[in-house]
Amino acid sequence: MPTTPLDPPALAAGTLRVIPLGGLGEVGRNMTVFEYDGKLLVVDCGVLFPEEHQPGVDLILPDFEPIKHRLDDIVGVVLTHGHEDHIGAVPYLLKLKSDIPLIGSGLTLALIEAKLKEHRIRPYTLTVKEGQLEKVGPFDLEFIAVNHSIPDALAVAIRTPAGLVLATGDFKMDQLPLDGRITDLRAFARLGEEGVDLFLVDSTNADVPGFTPTERGIGPVLDQVIARAPRRVVVASFSSHVHRVQQVLDAAHANGRRVALLGRSMVRNMGIAADLGYLNVPDGVLIDYKKARDLPDDQIVYMSTGSQGEPMAVLSRMANLDHAIEPGEGDTIILASSQIPGNENAIYRVIDGLTKLGATVVHKGNAKVHVSGHAAAGELLYCYNILKPKNVLPVHGEYRHLMANAKLARETGIAEENTILGENGTVVDLRDGVAKVVGQMDIGFVYVDGSSVGEITDADLKDRRILGEEGFISVIVVVDSATGKIVSGPDIHARGVAEDDKVFDSVKPKIAAALAEAAKSGVSDNHALSQVVRRTIGRWVNQSLRRRPMIVPMVIEA
Amino acid sequence: MPTTPLDPPALAAGTLRVIPLGGLGEVGRNMTVFEYDGKLLVVDCGVLFPEEHQPGVDLILPDFEPIKHRLDDIVGVVLTHGHEDHIGAVPYLLKLKSDIPLIGSGLTLALIEAKLKEHRIRPYTLTVKEGQLEKVGPFDLEFIAVNHSIPDALAVAIRTPAGLVLATGDFKMDQLPLDGRITDLRAFARLGEEGVDLFLVDSTNADVPGFTPTERGIGPVLDQVIARAPRRVVVASFSSHVHRVQQVLDAAHANGRRVALLGRSMVRNMGIAADLGYLNVPDGVLIDYKKARDLPDDQIVYMSTGSQGEPMAVLSRMANLDHAIEPGEGDTIILASSQIPGNENAIYRVIDGLTKLGATVVHKGNAKVHVSGHAAAGELLYCYNILKPKNVLPVHGEYRHLMANAKLARETGIAEENTILGENGTVVDLRDGVAKVVGQMDIGFVYVDGSSVGEITDADLKDRRILGEEGFISVIVVVDSATGKIVSGPDIHARGVAEDDKVFDSVKPKIAAALAEAAKSGVSDNHALSQVVRRTIGRWVNQSLRRRPMIVPMVIEA
Repeated sequence: MPTTPLDPPALAAGTLRVIPLGGLGEVGRNMTVFEYDGKLLVVDCGVLFPEEHQPGVDLILPDFEPIKHRLDDIVGVVLTHGHEDHIGAVPYLLKLKSDIPLIGSGLTLALIEAKLKEHRIRPYTLTVKEGQLEKVGPFDLEFIAVNHSIPDALAVAIRTPAGLVLATGDFKMDQLPLDGRITDLRAFARLGEEGVDLFLVDSTNADVPGFTPTERGIGPVLDQVIARAPRRVVVASFSSHVHRVQQVLDAAHANGRRVALLGRSMVRNMGIAADLGYLNVPDGVLIDYKKARDLPDDQIVYMSTGSQGEPMAVLSRMANLDHAIEPGEGDTIILASSQIPGNENAIYRVIDGLTKLGATVVHKGNAKVHVSGHAAAGELLYCYNILKPKNVLPVHGEYRHLMANAKLARETGIAEENTILGENGTVVDLRDGVAKVVGQMDIGFVYVDGSSVGEITDADLKDRRILGEEGFISVIVVVDSATGKIVSGPDIHARGVAEDDKVFDSVKPKIAAALAEAAKSGVSDNHALSQVVRRTIGRWVNQSLRRRPMIVPMVIEA
Repeated sequence: MPTTPLDPPALAAGTLRVIPLGGLGEVGRNMTVFEYDGKLLVVDCGVLFPEEHQPGVDLILPDFEPIKHRLDDIVGVVLTHGHEDHIGAVPYLLKLKSDIPLIGSGLTLALIEAKLKEHRIRPYTLTVKEGQLEKVGPFDLEFIAVNHSIPDALAVAIRTPAGLVLATGDFKMDQLPLDGRITDLRAFARLGEEGVDLFLVDSTNADVPGFTPTERGIGPVLDQVIARAPRRVVVASFSSHVHRVQQVLDAAHANGRRVALLGRSMVRNMGIAADLGYLNVPDGVLIDYKKARDLPDDQIVYMSTGSQGEPMAVLSRMANLDHAIEPGEGDTIILASSQIPGNENAIYRVIDGLTKLGATVVHKGNAKVHVSGHAAAGELLYCYNILKPKNVLPVHGEYRHLMANAKLARETGIAEENTILGENGTVVDLRDGVAKVVGQMDIGFVYVDGSSVGEITDADLKDRRILGEEGFISVIVVVDSATGKIVSGPDIHARGVAEDDKVFDSVKPKIAAALAEAAKSGVSDNHALSQVVRRTIGRWVNQSLRRRPMIVPMVIEA
């Protein structure tokens, strides 16, 4: 695996270049760039959600640096499905050049168009379907149905004279999906016969043994829980999981209950899904949530957001009695969702809050109310055996997922040198069935915080981590510009360090003495004097409190 | 459940009062106070580890407030076993009064004595064994063997004229424990015959269906993994899990490998366990880690700390190549431990780091290398049926765990009014077989940060959270004390907000203008002027950056 930057050679004629810009070594911000004959095709353009060591960050974008100067060469962006980690960064790309065409299925484009509307961008789009062929610049595209935790997902085959590439996007192989739209293994077989030169394959669940159970198994469980619920039912799930919501609507309907949608994204996405025919709303089952509150408790199901314990989402607010619907004794709350690593504490805080209010909480841990959207190891083995690809580039996953996927590939007989373990920025060239790593670009994190994009740096985040762990102490000393004598201060203000600034009273004379000492030995530059202040109080804090807050000394002349 | 403070009545003669000070509604800082006839008995005195919303905190202690003024009344502290969440706060209690006697089993006392030595405290101790009876003040104590993820754990029965109480401490009911020391169900049966008036019972796994598998099942898996490992093996686990380490020693020995212990707490605890005969070290199997590095790779097992992804522990440092032992291709790393909720991201970062270096990582997710130390629902049902307690107070757990435990109690026929769902500070009085909630004390979090105990408040933590998410902007203006005119500034310094303080250049004239405006309308008080500065820059930051950093305005006269 290349780890140090290495400039790739100029792209030779007849060669396809593949550069993943995001999604390798992380779960999110999926984006891959394909280059042929001077033209670029982008597949997916998603966001990554920050972890706890990236405090205050709203979103993380793929690093567009390698393509920023070549926006005019982009012939299109293929979006494989409508999840944030595949479409969320499109607005930021289109802010650089708004007429880059977007290519995707009906639902995918509807979701990204709704999002772009909030950014006041009207995109150029090309709606495609499974089985469809499109020539986009030098790239011959074929779209293939795959099945995932959102309807209308597509894999894309990319043909150039350099060879045939298949990119799965996110997928699984549910053999009994709710909408009957299975991952098209006949198409995979046909491509396999033709010869797949490079296979970019979803790794998210490559380290999960066996097979992902069918989504259809969730319905009867929901039905049973709702049938037994004595009073109100609240179901929380992802706001784009159309089939999960479908099962909730069906189970509610079967039990004589009506459903009110809660949460802005839930209302918006299900509106789109229903309009386009992806969500089948049984007659009269939906009800406005304000009217729902007049129904008897045993005739209502609330379908809400907040299954990850997000503090501002509906479910957290319910748990904190900060929502019009206040859960209580006899209510049943179902978290029909995964627990994304890192969210467990937040999720359990919500579960505890709801339990404390008297509600019964049903979740993944105590009932079969969730299945994953990604192919597990057993399914991936099927893919490798049907496709028999010449080369494999595992994508979409932390390093351990990519590794596990490569191992599966090798177990089906693909040689180790043909399974490429890349990272973001790895440059892979394909020609005559041979795929080779030829370079490594330096790829960074692009942080969105408030309205700023890319302005917050890793150094700022380091400062935030120190401030968040330790707080800060600012020391201000005003000195006379002529004599160098202290005319005001030291004033000491601290936040997050001690309850009362009076604890610093004993160090003030030490600071004044240190400054006088420094002045005596000829130090007069304000920066140097600030360092004297920093050292003096830093040492004192370390010794007396055994802590290391950020120290911000300021010596000002007046 | 009482949620608002309510002063308990004066304690009537012949009544036993029970007040849990920690461990209810949380996993950690377990501590319960029993009062009879003016005397206090404490059972356990542990610490709680902070969550992400308590940044920078080292430890959280039980709130000693309700007993602080009655230290002379404490007749003893019973420690049920040697885990941090049951003994970790003892040094802080003994700092208030160093001669409070500690009562516990041999291993438990050895572990707390080692810890107290670091705090330079030599405690008064009373070593007890299962089956032993002791009169401590007005409390007749009987100690009963229970089995847990550390050897030598004890439950304690407390007899007073008010009735018989049984407190389990942490326990499970492994029927084939490594050391043959099973939870003494015969004693439980005998107490049941006698009549248990109040049962304080471990709730940690009450929401886990079925039975915790036997620790003995781990050995063969470790043996198999070690037998197949081509090069070095590193096993990470909790440093007090003597039986897990025992199984590693045995598996290493059986495979012709030697074992080096890594990590200060691992070396210390296993030294104690071996000295006291709890750990059986096969002849010659242990080796100093410096010498271990000279052995061939396939003849060594490193037993280390860091299974929770703690950044300073051995395993994280190995993953970051910041340790003398650098893992690589062919090495096998086994995480023989649980994943404590909230630690998943840190653990997976370590797993990814090790995988990236070429090591094979075996963990709970892909092999049977861990079992819990707590009784699951099936085991708890056995307890209830054998004991048939009159009243139950579930302890040790988040609210959902306590709730699940109470539900199990009711399923075995204990009436709802006899299962007490308490929280920290709930005051329960027991007399004539009747247990009643009679009050609710206001219990807070006591934060240890560096050398300060209880000085960091929730307000400081809120400041830290804001600083950590958003950073801060300080604005300093020096004004002439006579004329009120600005003589220096506004100087603006920010951390965690923007890469370059120059972004603030455009707001400086606005601040100066706002101050001039305020002065014109007669505002001269520095605090009021500071507020003008705060409002001006706050509005600007919110509009231009869409963020809300902490703003620290300072108007200084010179």
